[in-house]
Amino acid sequence: MTEIRTGTFESLEDLRDACDDLPDGNEQAVSAAAARQDRLTKPPGSLGRLEDMVLWLARWQGRADPALDRVEILVFAGNHGVAARGVSAYPPSVTAQMVANFEAGGAAINQLARNADAHLRVIPLALDRPTADFTVGPAMDEAEFLEAVSVGYGAVAPGTDLLCLGEMGIGNTTPAAALAAALFGGAASHWAGRGTGLDDEGLKRKRAAIEEGIARHGDPKADPLDLACDLGGRELAAILGAVLAARHHAIPVLLDGFVCTAGAAPLECLRDGGLDHATIAHVSAETGHRGLADALGMQPVLNFGMRLGEASGAVLAVPIYRAALACHAGMATFDEAGVDNRD
Amino acid sequence: MTEIRTGTFESLEDLRDACDDLPDGNEQAVSAAAARQDRLTKPPGSLGRLEDMVLWLARWQGRADPALDRVEILVFAGNHGVAARGVSAYPPSVTAQMVANFEAGGAAINQLARNADAHLRVIPLALDRPTADFTVGPAMDEAEFLEAVSVGYGAVAPGTDLLCLGEMGIGNTTPAAALAAALFGGAASHWAGRGTGLDDEGLKRKRAAIEEGIARHGDPKADPLDLACDLGGRELAAILGAVLAARHHAIPVLLDGFVCTAGAAPLECLRDGGLDHATIAHVSAETGHRGLADALGMQPVLNFGMRLGEASGAVLAVPIYRAALACHAGMATFDEAGVDNRD
Repeated sequence: MTEIRTGTFESLEDLRDACDDLPDGNEQAVSAAAARQDRLTKPPGSLGRLEDMVLWLARWQGRADPALDRVEILVFAGNHGVAARGVSAYPPSVTAQMVANFEAGGAAINQLARNADAHLRVIPLALDRPTADFTVGPAMDEAEFLEAVSVGYGAVAPGTDLLCLGEMGIGNTTPAAALAAALFGGAASHWAGRGTGLDDEGLKRKRAAIEEGIARHGDPKADPLDLACDLGGRELAAILGAVLAARHHAIPVLLDGFVCTAGAAPLECLRDGGLDHATIAHVSAETGHRGLADALGMQPVLNFGMRLGEASGAVLAVPIYRAALACHAGMATFDEAGVDNRD
Repeated sequence: MTEIRTGTFESLEDLRDACDDLPDGNEQAVSAAAARQDRLTKPPGSLGRLEDMVLWLARWQGRADPALDRVEILVFAGNHGVAARGVSAYPPSVTAQMVANFEAGGAAINQLARNADAHLRVIPLALDRPTADFTVGPAMDEAEFLEAVSVGYGAVAPGTDLLCLGEMGIGNTTPAAALAAALFGGAASHWAGRGTGLDDEGLKRKRAAIEEGIARHGDPKADPLDLACDLGGRELAAILGAVLAARHHAIPVLLDGFVCTAGAAPLECLRDGGLDHATIAHVSAETGHRGLADALGMQPVLNFGMRLGEASGAVLAVPIYRAALACHAGMATFDEAGVDNRD
């Protein structure tokens, strides 16, 4: 059994151990849920992916009758030294302003959270201390990285039924692309997109910065955690901590877009199946997210061409999971309803 | 202006006139809604298809601030003479049994309706009088067809904000495939799938029945309403009436799967743009639905491999539309939130 963790990581080795010590899903719960699905008044398999969603929740919540009474959203915010290279269409001041907008209830995620009956918590990470520009040195030192991971880990409340993860940080598709390139290979152009709406010149600057960062830090033999420290950002590190905590606490996770998925990716690179308890809820229009989903072997749930971040894509899928569970819990069986089954 | 219609069609000519007399969408409402979207605290276009959904609701509700206070679901049920040809995995008795299951609250659509905060009404259409087997004669006579269309038309309540349409009828993917083939061309194998789970022998019988029906009734020059009468079914005819009524009452429509879309298709065939106020909410796993969506120029919203009918796919999309509207109505503008916009 997994030991109780405090969620404060003192060293990379300590974090690496936690990433290696992952509980499996509960296959008994899956079998019981699947047996019920076969008795419900519908042709077998006719609810398609909704049936898979129920089994996935059963597996990772560890119960045959999964529930979504407590859905939590965590949005981590960070600032980035590399933003000074002109890699975003918006100024870095917008990160803190959007955090204030979240707190005032005016952002998209506030409306989506209410629509999904989910609880939103926004966690700014040292916004007045941007990470270092990774083209000139490591984005974070080990202590900064571990602190951000620990904040993410500690933010996850045991007893949560489903965790939606997201981020906000002007310029953060640049570290996300650099980290994805370092973890999975491929050119900067494969991973770098227009983010919030970069023009052609900005996109050139962004690709150049990513290439410089990879040349400096992207040793293909490097440890995924070292890469996350050198090329990532605080909000990406916090997402890694949160998705790890969720696994230890038996909480399934909905990931948001490109940055969020890149933040979580080191867990899968460290340990095959490390993200089996996580699903990409919406494939972003941001260049690179589809490729990242493919690299992770994940099938996104929704595809609406969104590219906002803020956990918006993750939370949008919550009502679909609620619908799947409502069918599972509420439908009559053939026997109960007196409906003739197929011969 | 469109005259007030009683919704009782006395002749095919009368119905044809109603199908020709279609109000356009409200482009002023669209422009006003789009102008608001540009001011909200998000990069332009970053909510992707959610933004299109808002504009579509604005256009067809005819107001810049669309609402979803009153979402109605209509499920029409019918029985089919052609079922005696062994074209379904389930016996025809199941149609009435499932209607009872709907009324008792035990079917998937009951759970999905509650999850979507939508009101469900189930309308059985002469279940004890199946349509005639279209391989030996017309499925309905003109009076039967017009009665079913009129029931569908009259079932739509003015003041509805969004109408979800669906159906139940053992064997009804066979008339749906026959009607689609007659309207759009193509072989029976292109349109005929396994429905609720037909085996290989059953699929052969189904294709043969469709080919016989098309040979008998499917004159490519025939009027779409004549084809719907000769090859369709009562629940398909009622869907045609309902989607027509929705257009006259300024109600946007979410269509469900293959049978529902086939039922509505004659309106587009009679008049280009006749289904512009309707969206396919979910592309069914049933063979032929994707091709039918393509033939109609429609982009389904969801794709979860479902193939249940009952309006299940239509209603599943309702929370997504609610999410889109929540963002539109509730988000702060850049000015309100004091967030710096891009330069």
